[in-house]
Amino acid sequence: MCKIKAVHAVNSTICISQSTKSAMKRGDIVTFGEGRKKAAVIGAAGFAGIELVRLLVRHPVFELVAVTSDAFANQKVSDHYPALIGQTNLSFCANADLDRSELDIAFLAVPHTAALDLAPALLEKGITVVDLSADFRLKDADIYEAWYGAEHTQRSLLKEAAFGLPEVTGEELSHAAQRHAKGQAVLVACAGCYPTATSLAAAPLLLAGLGDAGSSVVVDAVSGVTGAGKSATERTHFCFANNNIEAYGVAKHRHTPEIEQILNIPNRLVFTPHLAPVNRGILSTVTIKLAEEASDITIERLQQLYEDYYAASPFVFVLPQGTLPKTSSVVGTNNAHVSVVLHKPTRSAVALCAIDNICKGAAGQAIQCANIVFGFPQAAGLEGMALPI
Amino acid sequence: MCKIKAVHAVNSTICISQSTKSAMKRGDIVTFGEGRKKAAVIGAAGFAGIELVRLLVRHPVFELVAVTSDAFANQKVSDHYPALIGQTNLSFCANADLDRSELDIAFLAVPHTAALDLAPALLEKGITVVDLSADFRLKDADIYEAWYGAEHTQRSLLKEAAFGLPEVTGEELSHAAQRHAKGQAVLVACAGCYPTATSLAAAPLLLAGLGDAGSSVVVDAVSGVTGAGKSATERTHFCFANNNIEAYGVAKHRHTPEIEQILNIPNRLVFTPHLAPVNRGILSTVTIKLAEEASDITIERLQQLYEDYYAASPFVFVLPQGTLPKTSSVVGTNNAHVSVVLHKPTRSAVALCAIDNICKGAAGQAIQCANIVFGFPQAAGLEGMALPI
Amino acid sequence: MCKIKAVHAVNSTICISQSTKSAMKRGDIVTFGEGRKKAAVIGAAGFAGIELVRLLVRHPVFELVAVTSDAFANQKVSDHYPALIGQTNLSFCANADLDRSELDIAFLAVPHTAALDLAPALLEKGITVVDLSADFRLKDADIYEAWYGAEHTQRSLLKEAAFGLPEVTGEELSHAAQRHAKGQAVLVACAGCYPTATSLAAAPLLLAGLGDAGSSVVVDAVSGVTGAGKSATERTHFCFANNNIEAYGVAKHRHTPEIEQILNIPNRLVFTPHLAPVNRGILSTVTIKLAEEASDITIERLQQLYEDYYAASPFVFVLPQGTLPKTSSVVGTNNAHVSVVLHKPTRSAVALCAIDNICKGAAGQAIQCANIVFGFPQAAGLEGMALPI
Amino acid sequence: MCKIKAVHAVNSTICISQSTKSAMKRGDIVTFGEGRKKAAVIGAAGFAGIELVRLLVRHPVFELVAVTSDAFANQKVSDHYPALIGQTNLSFCANADLDRSELDIAFLAVPHTAALDLAPALLEKGITVVDLSADFRLKDADIYEAWYGAEHTQRSLLKEAAFGLPEVTGEELSHAAQRHAKGQAVLVACAGCYPTATSLAAAPLLLAGLGDAGSSVVVDAVSGVTGAGKSATERTHFCFANNNIEAYGVAKHRHTPEIEQILNIPNRLVFTPHLAPVNRGILSTVTIKLAEEASDITIERLQQLYEDYYAASPFVFVLPQGTLPKTSSVVGTNNAHVSVVLHKPTRSAVALCAIDNICKGAAGQAIQCANIVFGFPQAAGLEGMALPI
Repeated sequence: MCKIKAVHAVNSTICISQSTKSAMKRGDIVTFGEGRKKAAVIGAAGFAGIELVRLLVRHPVFELVAVTSDAFANQKVSDHYPALIGQTNLSFCANADLDRSELDIAFLAVPHTAALDLAPALLEKGITVVDLSADFRLKDADIYEAWYGAEHTQRSLLKEAAFGLPEVTGEELSHAAQRHAKGQAVLVACAGCYPTATSLAAAPLLLAGLGDAGSSVVVDAVSGVTGAGKSATERTHFCFANNNIEAYGVAKHRHTPEIEQILNIPNRLVFTPHLAPVNRGILSTVTIKLAEEASDITIERLQQLYEDYYAASPFVFVLPQGTLPKTSSVVGTNNAHVSVVLHKPTRSAVALCAIDNICKGAAGQAIQCANIVFGFPQAAGLEGMALPI
Repeated sequence: MCKIKAVHAVNSTICISQSTKSAMKRGDIVTFGEGRKKAAVIGAAGFAGIELVRLLVRHPVFELVAVTSDAFANQKVSDHYPALIGQTNLSFCANADLDRSELDIAFLAVPHTAALDLAPALLEKGITVVDLSADFRLKDADIYEAWYGAEHTQRSLLKEAAFGLPEVTGEELSHAAQRHAKGQAVLVACAGCYPTATSLAAAPLLLAGLGDAGSSVVVDAVSGVTGAGKSATERTHFCFANNNIEAYGVAKHRHTPEIEQILNIPNRLVFTPHLAPVNRGILSTVTIKLAEEASDITIERLQQLYEDYYAASPFVFVLPQGTLPKTSSVVGTNNAHVSVVLHKPTRSAVALCAIDNICKGAAGQAIQCANIVFGFPQAAGLEGMALPI
Repeated sequence: MCKIKAVHAVNSTICISQSTKSAMKRGDIVTFGEGRKKAAVIGAAGFAGIELVRLLVRHPVFELVAVTSDAFANQKVSDHYPALIGQTNLSFCANADLDRSELDIAFLAVPHTAALDLAPALLEKGITVVDLSADFRLKDADIYEAWYGAEHTQRSLLKEAAFGLPEVTGEELSHAAQRHAKGQAVLVACAGCYPTATSLAAAPLLLAGLGDAGSSVVVDAVSGVTGAGKSATERTHFCFANNNIEAYGVAKHRHTPEIEQILNIPNRLVFTPHLAPVNRGILSTVTIKLAEEASDITIERLQQLYEDYYAASPFVFVLPQGTLPKTSSVVGTNNAHVSVVLHKPTRSAVALCAIDNICKGAAGQAIQCANIVFGFPQAAGLEGMALPI
Repeated sequence: MCKIKAVHAVNSTICISQSTKSAMKRGDIVTFGEGRKKAAVIGAAGFAGIELVRLLVRHPVFELVAVTSDAFANQKVSDHYPALIGQTNLSFCANADLDRSELDIAFLAVPHTAALDLAPALLEKGITVVDLSADFRLKDADIYEAWYGAEHTQRSLLKEAAFGLPEVTGEELSHAAQRHAKGQAVLVACAGCYPTATSLAAAPLLLAGLGDAGSSVVVDAVSGVTGAGKSATERTHFCFANNNIEAYGVAKHRHTPEIEQILNIPNRLVFTPHLAPVNRGILSTVTIKLAEEASDITIERLQQLYEDYYAASPFVFVLPQGTLPKTSSVVGTNNAHVSVVLHKPTRSAVALCAIDNICKGAAGQAIQCANIVFGFPQAAGLEGMALPI
C-alpha cells in the first residue's frame, strides 16, 4: 500500500501541519534548490543550546554538523540528554576543535561577552551568525556597558546586527535577508526571553501610540526555572525551586533596557521578574495606562488591533476575547498566546503573553530568524505542537 | 531526670519559641484563668476549614469541639485528611446537627452568602463569630452586591463587624476585644488572601501618604492552587495545574474592592491574580508611583518606615534590604515576609509580600483575630515554623 | 530559494527523522497510493482521546474527521485544550451524531464495557476498530468478568481481536493486517499502560524462558497522574497529588491478569502501582528470579538478548549497560527506554522500562497498531521527540 | 484574662498534643530537673543538618548552642534558610572553631568517613554522639569497607555504637541510655532513610519469622529529591528532577547491607531505589513471600500483628485495613504510616511505609534517639504535624 522512493538528492519537505494560520497547506511540498545548509551550535550543552539541537536535528534544510561544549567534549549528546537517544549520534566537540570551513551558519548559545569574541571571526569567514546572547541586542553600546558591566568591544558590528524579534523588527530582518541573498554573512541578535514575551504582549498597543506617554509601564513576568540556566546552584536546586514562588532582580534586571528599546519607552519600565516551579514557560503581564485620546477605546477595537497586528504571523495567536493564555499551551513550541483586557476604572489595559522561554524566547526564535535570513518559510522546522496535557 | 506533673485543671502553655520578635521569652508560662474556650469550625472539610482544624487541635486555649461538613457527615476527619491521623479523633457532623449550646466561638469557613445566613443566630446565642467568607468584609453593602451579585441581607450587622487584618485594622479589633471583654459576642470579618498579602506589602507606604494619588496601583499576585479551593475542577486537576502559569479574573477579581478599601485607593487598583503550581503561598508584587513630595526618599528611609510599621507584629518580618521574599519560607505559618525596593527612573516603589494563603491568608489570621478578641497573646497556637527545605 | 509545489492529490510524507533505528532515511518519500483514510476518535475529550487527536491531526495518512464527546458536544476542541489552538478547527460532536458512513477506522477511548457496545456495529459497517479500553484484551472472558465485574457480552468477537502490543504480539497484528488487506475490518485491543511498560521490560527475559517458573514476578510501577484519568477527584486534585507519593490498588489492580497473560506467568505476578506527581510517564521496575539454568548468565549476554529482541523495533531503545531509564526522556513520544541489571546474590534480574503512559501506553500505541493493520510504516505520525529539558 | 509568669529557671514543657498514641495528656507538665542540655550540630548546612536545626531550636530540653559549616562560616543560618528568620539568630561557625567544652551532645550530619574522624574525640570529652552518617551502622566492618570503599578506622568503637532505629533496636538504645545515666558518653548510629522506611514496613512480619527463608525480599522505594542531598548537581537540578521518575543505584545501593542487617535477611534483598519530584518523603514497598507455615494467615491476623508491634510507639501508625500510606501525610514529622496487604495467589505480603526521609529518616530519628538516651520522652520536640494539604 505504501511505496518508498528515495529522494536524497533533493531538499524538500512536505507540510503536514494543519495550522490555521500557515500560508502552506497540507501536502504542499517545499523544495530547496541549492541543497542543505550546514549549521553549528556553539555552546550546545546549555539549555538554549540543547533546544537548538532538538530543533535542528529535525530541520528540513539546516543540517546540524557540529555542536560544541568544552565541558562535555567528545561525549555523546544523547548521553547527557537521553531524550535525544535515537535522534542523533552527534558528540560534543571542544570549541577549539570546531571546523568552521564548511559552515553556512553558527548559532551562539554562549554567555554574554563571549559572543563579542566569537562573532567577528565567523562573519569574516562568511558564516552567518545568529547570536542568542545579549551582546548585540542593545543599539546603544553605552547602555550595554552600564547594564552588563563589560566593555563592548565590537561597536561597529553593533550597527550591522539585525534585532531578532520578527513580529516587531521584521524590517531589520528583511534587510538582513536581502544582504544574505547577495552573499553576505549577516549577524542577528535574538531578543531575550522576557523581552520577547513582554513585547509580544505590548507592541500592538504601544507601537500604535495608545499608551500614555507620561506613565510607567508595569511588567510582572513569571518564568520557569530553565530561565535560570543549567548551572546547578541553590536557586536551581529542585528542593529550593520546588514549592516556591519568588521575585528576583527587582529594579535591576538586564532585560529592562532591552524591553525599553523594543517598545520605545525609555526610562518608563518597571520590570519585575519572578520564578515559579515549572521547567519552561514565561507569562508576562503588562499593565499600561492608556493615552487620554484612547480613553474611550472599546475592547472590541483593541482586540481587532491585536488580531490585525499578528494576522500574518504563523506563531502568535491572539486568543478569543475573554480567554487568557497559559504557559502549558505553548511549551515546546515557537508559539505565543496573547490576550488583552481593558480596565475601565483606571483607564488601563492589561496585556498578557505566554511563550516557551527556551523556544520562542531563545532557540526557536533563533531558528525563525535564521529561516527569514535564508529565505525559508518562517516556520520551517518549528511546527511543534504542545502536549494538550 | 524528668518528672511529669499533671496540671489538667489549669489552662496554661509554656513558650518554647525562640522567635526574635515575640514578647514572650522561652520558658514563660501563660496561664488562662477561666478555662478553655469551646470552638467550632463550620465548613471544616474545605481547605480553609481543615487548616483551622490543624491549628485548633494544638491551640493552648481554644478547644475544638465540633467540625461540620454535610458532605462528610459522620466520617472521621483523619479519614479524609490522613495528616491528622493520631492528632484528633473528631468526626465531621452535619451542619444541622451542630450543638451550639456550649460554644464560645464559631469559625465560618463557608462560601459567600452562607455567612449572611449563619452569623446572626450565632451572635444572638452569644457566640463570637470569626467569618472567613467575604460577606462582612466590604463596609459598603452596595459594593458587595455589585461584586458578589447577591443581596446583602445583614446590613446592620455589617457596621458591627471588625475587619480582620490585625497589622492594619488593629483598632477595629481592639474595640471588638473591649466589647468581648464586657461579655458581648462579636463578629470579625477576616481579610481575604490576596488583600492580606497585598496590604501587608503596600500599607506602610500608602497609609503614610507616600503614594501618588493620581496614579494607579498595580498588583500582580501569584497564588498556589489551594487558592482555587477544594472543588475538583479542570482548573484544579493536577494535570492542568501542573507545569502551568496563568492569569485569571483579570480586571474583575472580587478582591479588588477589598484591597481598595483597606489601602484607601478607590478606583485606583489594577489587580491581576495568577496561578502557579504550588499548593500554598501567595506572592504579591505591588508597584506604586511615589508622590512627588516623596520623590527623593532613600531606600534606607523606606526600609526604616517598613521596619517601624511592623516592629510590634509577631508575624510580619521585613527582610534585610536586598533580600526578597519566597513563598516557601512561610508555608504552614502565619508569617509574612515583606520587602520594598525603589525604582528611581520611574519614581516608583516595588513592594512584595509572601504569605501562606491558607494560613495567614485565611485560617491562621482567623485564629490571630480570635486571640486578639479573647485577649490572648496574638501568636497563641500560631508558632509554626516553615520547613527550611 | 524555495519553491512550493502543491501536491494535494498525492498522499505522501518525507522522512525528516534522523532516528538511528528507523528503516527510512532522511529524505525518503513515502507515498500512499489510495488516498487518505478517514478516522474518528470516540471519547475524544479524555486524556487518551485528546492524545489521539494530537497525534492524528499530524498523521500523514489518517485524516481525523470526527471526535466525539457528549459532555463537550458542539464545542471546539481547542477551547478545551488550548495547546491545539491553530492546529485544528474540529469541534466535538455528540456520540449519537457521529457520521459513521465514510469512516475507515474508529479509535475507541471509552470506559470499559462501552467498547463492548460500540465495537460490533462499527465492525459490521466495515470500520476497523482500535479499542483502547480493556474490553477485548483478556483472551479468557471469565477472567474479564471476574476482574471487571461486568458481563462480557461479545465473547465471539474476543477471538477475533488482535492484542495490540506490537513488540510482543506482532504476529497477531500481522494476521490482522493480512485480513485487513483483504478488505476486512479488524478489531485491535490495545494493551494497557502498565502492561505495556512491564511487558517491554520483562518480555525478552521471560519469553526466553530465563525466569524461574516457581517464583513470583514482582512489579512495582510508578505512574504519572494522567493515569488516573481526567475526572476531577480528590486523587487528581493538584493539592492532593502534588508533593505526594502513594501506592494504590495493591493486590487488586485490573492490569494484573493482563500482564500475566502477555508474559505467560499465570498467578505469579505481584503488581503494585504507585502515583507520583508528574503528568505523564510510567516507570515499571520488574524483579525476576532467574531460572537455575540461567544462573550463570552474564550481564553482557542478557544485554545482548535485550538488544536482539528489540533490534527491529523503531520505538524501543535498550539503554547502554549501566544507564537507567527516565520517564522525562520519553514524554510525548511513542518510545520506550529499557534497561536490565543482574543481581547476583539473589540470582535475580531487575528490568526497567520507561514509557509515556498516554502515548506508548495508550494513544501512540493505538496508532502504531493502526499503522501496522493498514500496512503503513509503524512510525508514521509517531516521530515525536521528547523535550531534552 | 491571661497572666504570664516567668519560669526561666525551670526546664519544663506542657504537652498540648492530642496525639491519640501519646502517653502524655494535654496539660501535662514535664519538668527537667537538671537544666537544659547543650547541643551542637556538626555539618548543619546540609539537608539533614538544617532539619536538626529546625527541630532543635524548638526542643524543650536540648539547647542548640552551635552549628557548624565550613562553607557558610560566620553567616547567619537564616540568611541561607529564610524559613528560620525570626526563629534563631545563630550563625554557622567553622568546624575548627567549634567550642566543645560545654557540649552535652553532638549531632553529626557529615558525609561517611568524616564521622570516623570526629566521633572518638567527642566521646573522649564526654560528649554523647548521635551520628547520622553510615560510619557506625554496619556491625561488620568488613561489609562497611566493601560497600563504602573506605577503611573502617574505628573498629573498636563500632561495638559500642547503639543502632538508632528505636522501633526495632530499642534494646540497644536502652542499654545506651543506662550507660548514659551512669555518666558515660554514648555513640548512636542512626539508621539510614531507606532502611528506616523499609524496616518499619517489614519488621513485624519478618522478625516474627513469617517470611519464607528461601525467597528474596523485594524492596522498591521511591524517595524525594532531598534524599539526593544538597549538592547542586544535574540530578538535583530542578529542570532534570521535575517531571521525571527514575531508578538509580540498582543492585548496588549502599543501604542494601544495612537493611539486610536490620531485618536479618543476609543476601536475600533486592533493593531498587527511585527518585520522584517531591522534596521530602519515602514510600517503601516491600514484597515478601510468606513462609509455608504462614500460608493461611488472614489479613486480620496480620493487621493485628502489626498493630501490636507498634502499639507502644508514639510515631508509627498502622493504617486501618484497606488504607494505604501517602508520603504527604508525614512530611515534616517524625511519623511513619504503615500498611500491610495479603496477596493470596502468590502467598505474598506487600508491606508499605511512608516517612519523611529527612525527619524520621534522618534528623527526627536522631533526636528521638537522643531523647531516649537522655531519658526524655521519646517525642519531646518531635510533636510536629503534617500539613493536611
